[in-house]
Amino acid sequence: MFGQMAEPAEVAHPYYPLGVDIPHYAANTLPLPVILGSLVGMLGSAMLATSTLALRFNPSLGKGQLVIFCWFIVCYFVLNHATVASSQNLFAQLWKEYALSDSRYLTSDPFMLSVESITVFLWGPLSFLCAVSIVAASPLRHPLQIIMCMAHLYGVALYYSTSLVETHFTGRSHSRPEFLYFWVYYVGFNFPWVVVPAFLMYDSLKTISRKLRSFEQVKIGLKGYEARNGSAKTAVVSKKAEKKEQ
Amino acid sequence: MFGQMAEPAEVAHPYYPLGVDIPHYAANTLPLPVILGSLVGMLGSAMLATSTLALRFNPSLGKGQLVIFCWFIVCYFVLNHATVASSQNLFAQLWKEYALSDSRYLTSDPFMLSVESITVFLWGPLSFLCAVSIVAASPLRHPLQIIMCMAHLYGVALYYSTSLVETHFTGRSHSRPEFLYFWVYYVGFNFPWVVVPAFLMYDSLKTISRKLRSFEQVKIGLKGYEARNGSAKTAVVSKKAEKKEQ
Repeated sequence: MFGQMAEPAEVAHPYYPLGVDIPHYAANTLPLPVILGSLVGMLGSAMLATSTLALRFNPSLGKGQLVIFCWFIVCYFVLNHATVASSQNLFAQLWKEYALSDSRYLTSDPFMLSVESITVFLWGPLSFLCAVSIVAASPLRHPLQIIMCMAHLYGVALYYSTSLVETHFTGRSHSRPEFLYFWVYYVGFNFPWVVVPAFLMYDSLKTISRKLRSFEQVKIGLKGYEARNGSAKTAVVSKKAEKKEQ
Repeated sequence: MFGQMAEPAEVAHPYYPLGVDIPHYAANTLPLPVILGSLVGMLGSAMLATSTLALRFNPSLGKGQLVIFCWFIVCYFVLNHATVASSQNLFAQLWKEYALSDSRYLTSDPFMLSVESITVFLWGPLSFLCAVSIVAASPLRHPLQIIMCMAHLYGVALYYSTSLVETHFTGRSHSRPEFLYFWVYYVGFNFPWVVVPAFLMYDSLKTISRKLRSFEQVKIGLKGYEARNGSAKTAVVSKKAEKKEQ
């Protein structure tokens, strides 16, 4: 699967497939621990700052909700910086390191360009909206969460499969073959976007279905009560609910 | 944008980019009106048969719901036959005609292979499940509908954009340049999967959000009523609702 291609006379960059055209390549200037440390620091302070704000707006937020809130904040930050230039800013250097596991980030691959554009314009803002809807306890929270999770799941499924299908059919791999790059970076770093959205989507499906079911039960219960007791008060409540529901 | 490539000495097939490798190509044996007529006939009878069944199971289905039911049935049929062989069965001939507008269906394009596999294994069955959930008036109907619509919207967005991005960057087009193939087949035939899912998703978001909101109101209304009247009956209904909701 890997290493089937002969190494060309001069390789100006470390990316696979060897010799692939990467215009304006400039090697990273920062050492890896600095890049990773800065990332962790940035994401950490973003989570801390936004969580503090969130709790001020809605002090009744539970721990679980706060964790999900932070997940969407992290998504927002990561997704909105998923564009790599030849520049040497922190995120650009981070992506150039990551691209060792997938050179499509640097080669204007049509699939990656499409996904990145849609991601920056839609999924980034939508992640942020999901975080906000948790704090606002919006009735749109779970529907939005399902949309967002679907985008992540479908996106990561296509991200894995397009590259594996290409390797399978042509022998060309976009990932360096070392364990660190293929398994840790390529498979591992994307795996949270399989596990977490799957869990959150299951949770949202369950929550919506349960609330809608008990809404129907309350309606049936109220109708039975009215039929026996003719209470004006509950009749109003139930009528209101029925009207809303149509 | 089109026609930038010189025509090779011998073109064994009519697909773009000219001269692209299509293994085992066999020209269609049926005339186009026969292919299209058979498709319309098949989809029509599928809709008729399944609608009859649906109405037998749930006679209270409204017209609007029946139309949406038919949409998912059509999706199911189209999606589950989105695989093209060199065979000459009806759907294979249909796809070979359609591929004049997008040769990626015949060239083992990694993106198309990935999308097709996911489509056959996930989105086909899910379309069918959406249709069933309408008939069953399931509380999962709208959440499933959101998932399905997201898959269609994201899928068609990537389908359009991957190909347009590639044409933009490399000048290679997978579509024949004629109006019929580019605008009618490629743009037009896929456009229902932009419009209909967008509308259905909006509808599902609105429905879920309204039901959840009135569920909260009923709960608040019941609590107020209990506080004033202490009715054991409504207390039971409301407790039940509250327990379910946790």
